[in-house]
Amino acid sequence: MYAVIFTATMKLADDEYFETAARMRELALSRYGCREFTALSEGNQEIAISYWDSESDISAWKSDPAHQQAQRLGREQWYASYRVQVARVERQYQQGGESL
Amino acid sequence: MYAVIFTATMKLADDEYFETAARMRELALSRYGCREFTALSEGNQEIAISYWDSESDISAWKSDPAHQQAQRLGREQWYASYRVQVARVERQYQQGGESL
Repeated sequence: MYAVIFTATMKLADDEYFETAARMRELALSRYGCREFTALSEGNQEIAISYWDSESDISAWKSDPAHQQAQRLGREQWYASYRVQVARVERQYQQGGESL
Repeated sequence: MYAVIFTATMKLADDEYFETAARMRELALSRYGCREFTALSEGNQEIAISYWDSESDISAWKSDPAHQQAQRLGREQWYASYRVQVARVERQYQQGGESL
Protein backbone atom coordinates (compact mmCIF):
# COMPACT_ATOMS: atom_id res chain seq x y z
CA MET A 1 0.00 0.00 0.00
CA TYR A 2 1.19 3.48 -0.88
CA ALA A 3 0.17 6.76 0.72
CA VAL A 4 0.34 10.01 -1.22
CA ILE A 5 0.70 12.78 1.35
CA PHE A 6 -0.27 16.18 0.00
CA THR A 7 0.33 19.16 2.29
CA ALA A 8 -0.42 22.71 1.19
CA THR A 9 -0.72 26.29 2.29
CA MET A 10 -3.73 27.85 0.60
CA LYS A 11 -3.65 31.18 -1.16
CA LEU A 12 -7.28 31.26 -2.28
CA ALA A 13 -10.05 28.74 -1.59
CA ASP A 14 -12.98 29.77 -3.77
CA ASP A 15 -16.09 27.84 -4.80
CA GLU A 16 -14.28 26.40 -7.80
CA TYR A 17 -11.60 25.03 -5.48
CA PHE A 18 -14.08 23.16 -3.27
CA GLU A 19 -16.05 21.84 -6.26
CA THR A 20 -12.87 20.68 -7.96
CA ALA A 21 -11.49 19.06 -4.80
CA ALA A 22 -14.71 17.06 -4.37
CA ARG A 23 -14.73 16.01 -8.04
CA MET A 24 -11.08 14.95 -7.95
CA ARG A 25 -11.63 12.85 -4.83
CA GLU A 26 -14.57 11.10 -6.49
CA LEU A 27 -12.61 10.53 -9.71
CA ALA A 28 -9.63 9.06 -7.86
CA LEU A 29 -11.87 6.65 -5.95
CA SER A 30 -14.17 5.65 -8.80
CA ARG A 31 -11.80 5.41 -11.75
CA TYR A 32 -8.21 5.08 -10.58
CA GLY A 33 -8.34 2.49 -7.84
CA CYS A 34 -7.77 4.90 -4.96
CA ARG A 35 -8.49 2.93 -1.78
CA GLU A 36 -9.12 5.79 0.62
CA PHE A 37 -8.96 9.56 0.43
CA THR A 38 -8.88 11.73 3.55
CA ALA A 39 -8.53 15.50 3.54
CA LEU A 40 -8.59 18.01 6.38
CA SER A 41 -8.12 21.74 6.40
CA GLU A 42 -7.55 24.12 9.28
CA GLY A 43 -6.98 27.82 8.67
CA ASN A 44 -4.97 28.06 5.45
CA GLN A 45 -3.37 24.62 5.87
CA GLU A 46 -4.50 21.49 4.08
CA ILE A 47 -3.48 17.86 4.32
CA ALA A 48 -4.87 15.26 1.93
CA ILE A 49 -3.78 11.63 2.13
CA SER A 50 -4.77 9.13 -0.53
CA TYR A 51 -4.00 5.40 -0.50
CA TRP A 52 -3.13 3.25 -3.50
CA ASP A 53 -2.20 -0.33 -4.30
CA SER A 54 0.65 0.53 -6.66
CA GLU A 55 2.85 3.27 -8.06
CA SER A 56 1.32 2.66 -11.49
CA ASP A 57 -2.15 3.52 -10.13
CA ILE A 58 -0.67 6.75 -8.74
CA SER A 59 0.95 7.57 -12.09
CA ALA A 60 -2.27 6.94 -13.99
CA TRP A 61 -4.15 9.21 -11.58
CA LYS A 62 -1.54 11.94 -11.86
CA SER A 63 -1.87 11.86 -15.67
CA ASP A 64 -5.67 12.04 -15.82
CA PRO A 65 -6.58 15.08 -18.00
CA ALA A 66 -9.10 16.55 -15.52
CA HIS A 67 -6.62 16.05 -12.71
CA GLN A 68 -3.87 17.71 -14.75
CA GLN A 69 -6.13 20.72 -15.23
CA ALA A 70 -6.86 20.78 -11.48
CA GLN A 71 -3.13 20.59 -10.71
CA ARG A 72 -2.50 23.56 -13.01
CA LEU A 73 -5.22 25.63 -11.31
CA GLY A 74 -3.77 24.60 -7.94
CA ARG A 75 -0.33 25.89 -8.86
CA GLU A 76 -1.64 29.07 -10.45
CA GLN A 77 -4.51 30.08 -8.17
CA TRP A 78 -5.20 28.08 -5.05
CA TYR A 79 -1.95 27.13 -3.37
CA ALA A 80 0.76 29.42 -2.01
CA SER A 81 2.92 26.30 -1.66
CA TYR A 82 2.46 22.55 -1.59
CA ARG A 83 4.39 19.32 -1.24
CA VAL A 84 3.60 15.84 -2.48
CA GLN A 85 5.23 12.78 -0.91
CA VAL A 86 4.83 9.23 -2.10
CA ALA A 87 5.36 6.82 0.80
CA ARG A 88 5.13 3.07 1.16
CA VAL A 89 3.09 2.00 4.19
CA GLU A 90 5.22 -0.56 6.02
CA ARG A 91 3.01 -1.29 9.01
CA GLN A 92 -0.04 0.02 10.77
CA TYR A 93 -2.12 -0.51 13.84
CA GLN A 94 -5.38 0.91 15.00
CA GLN A 95 -7.92 0.99 17.76
CA GLY A 96 -11.67 1.28 17.27
CA GLY A 97 -13.42 2.30 14.04
CA GLU A 98 -13.35 0.47 10.74
CA SER A 99 -10.51 -1.52 9.24
CA LEU A 100 -8.95 -0.41 5.98
CA MET B 1 12.89 9.34 5.75
CA TYR B 2 9.89 7.85 7.50
CA ALA B 3 6.47 9.40 7.99
CA VAL B 4 4.26 8.37 10.89
CA ILE B 5 0.68 9.09 9.85
CA PHE B 6 -1.70 9.34 12.78
CA THR B 7 -5.40 9.73 11.95
CA ALA B 8 -8.05 9.89 14.64
CA THR B 9 -11.66 10.56 15.40
CA MET B 10 -11.89 12.54 18.62
CA LYS B 11 -14.23 11.68 21.45
CA LEU B 12 -13.25 14.49 23.81
CA ALA B 13 -10.78 17.32 23.24
CA ASP B 14 -10.37 19.02 26.62
CA ASP B 15 -7.69 21.44 27.85
CA GLU B 16 -5.51 18.54 28.96
CA TYR B 17 -5.63 17.11 25.44
CA PHE B 18 -4.39 20.34 23.81
CA GLU B 19 -1.69 20.86 26.46
CA THR B 20 -0.52 17.28 26.11
CA ALA B 21 -0.50 17.39 22.30
CA ALA B 22 1.67 20.53 22.35
CA ARG B 23 4.06 19.00 24.91
CA MET B 24 4.36 15.75 22.94
CA ARG B 25 5.13 17.61 19.72
CA GLU B 26 7.86 19.60 21.49
CA LEU B 27 9.30 16.46 23.10
CA ALA B 28 9.41 14.57 19.79
CA LEU B 29 11.21 17.46 18.08
CA SER B 30 13.62 18.35 20.88
CA ARG B 31 14.59 14.96 22.26
CA TYR B 32 13.82 12.20 19.75
CA GLY B 33 15.12 13.53 16.47
CA CYS B 34 11.71 14.20 14.93
CA ARG B 35 12.37 16.24 11.77
CA GLU B 36 8.95 17.77 11.30
CA PHE B 37 5.59 17.49 13.00
CA THR B 38 2.39 18.71 11.34
CA ALA B 39 -1.08 18.33 12.84
CA LEU B 40 -4.45 19.53 11.61
CA SER B 41 -7.92 19.06 13.00
CA GLU B 42 -11.29 19.73 11.44
CA GLY B 43 -14.50 18.90 13.28
CA ASN B 44 -13.78 15.72 15.24
CA GLN B 45 -11.11 14.50 12.80
CA GLU B 46 -7.40 14.82 13.38
CA ILE B 47 -4.36 14.05 11.23
CA ALA B 48 -0.84 14.35 12.61
CA ILE B 49 2.18 13.49 10.47
CA SER B 50 5.65 13.30 11.95
CA TYR B 51 8.88 12.68 10.01
CA TRP B 52 11.84 10.65 11.21
CA ASP B 53 15.24 9.52 9.97
CA SER B 54 14.92 5.93 11.15
CA GLU B 55 12.63 3.30 12.60
CA SER B 56 14.78 3.23 15.74
CA ASP B 57 14.05 6.93 16.36
CA ILE B 58 10.33 6.15 16.02
CA SER B 59 10.63 3.23 18.48
CA ALA B 60 12.49 5.36 21.01
CA TRP B 61 9.81 8.04 20.76
CA LYS B 62 7.02 5.51 21.12
CA SER B 63 8.63 4.20 24.33
CA ASP B 64 9.16 7.57 26.01
CA PRO B 65 7.43 7.43 29.44
CA ALA B 66 5.55 10.74 29.03
CA HIS B 67 4.48 9.68 25.55
CA GLN B 68 3.32 6.30 26.85
CA GLN B 69 1.17 8.10 29.41
CA ALA B 70 -0.25 10.35 26.66
CA GLN B 71 -1.00 7.30 24.50
CA ARG B 72 -2.87 5.72 27.39
CA LEU B 73 -4.95 8.87 27.96
CA GLY B 74 -5.60 9.01 24.22
CA ARG B 75 -6.98 5.46 24.16
CA GLU B 76 -9.02 5.94 27.34
CA GLN B 77 -10.34 9.49 27.04
CA TRP B 78 -9.64 11.48 23.90
CA TYR B 79 -9.99 9.25 20.85
CA ALA B 80 -13.04 7.36 19.66
CA SER B 81 -10.73 5.60 17.20
CA TYR B 82 -7.30 6.08 15.72
CA ARG B 83 -4.84 4.55 13.29
CA VAL B 84 -1.08 4.78 13.13
CA GLN B 85 0.80 4.03 9.90
CA VAL B 86 4.55 3.94 9.51
CA ALA B 87 5.50 4.74 5.92
CA ARG B 88 8.80 5.16 4.11
CA VAL B 89 8.91 8.31 1.99
CA GLU B 90 10.16 7.20 -1.42
CA ARG B 91 10.03 10.49 -3.31
CA GLN B 92 8.66 13.97 -3.01
CA TYR B 93 8.28 17.18 -4.93
CA GLN B 94 7.09 20.59 -3.99
CA GLN B 95 6.38 24.07 -5.20
CA GLY B 96 6.96 27.25 -3.21
CA GLY B 97 7.63 27.39 0.56
CA GLU B 98 10.58 25.92 2.38
CA SER B 99 12.46 22.73 1.59
CA LEU B 100 12.47 19.91 4.12
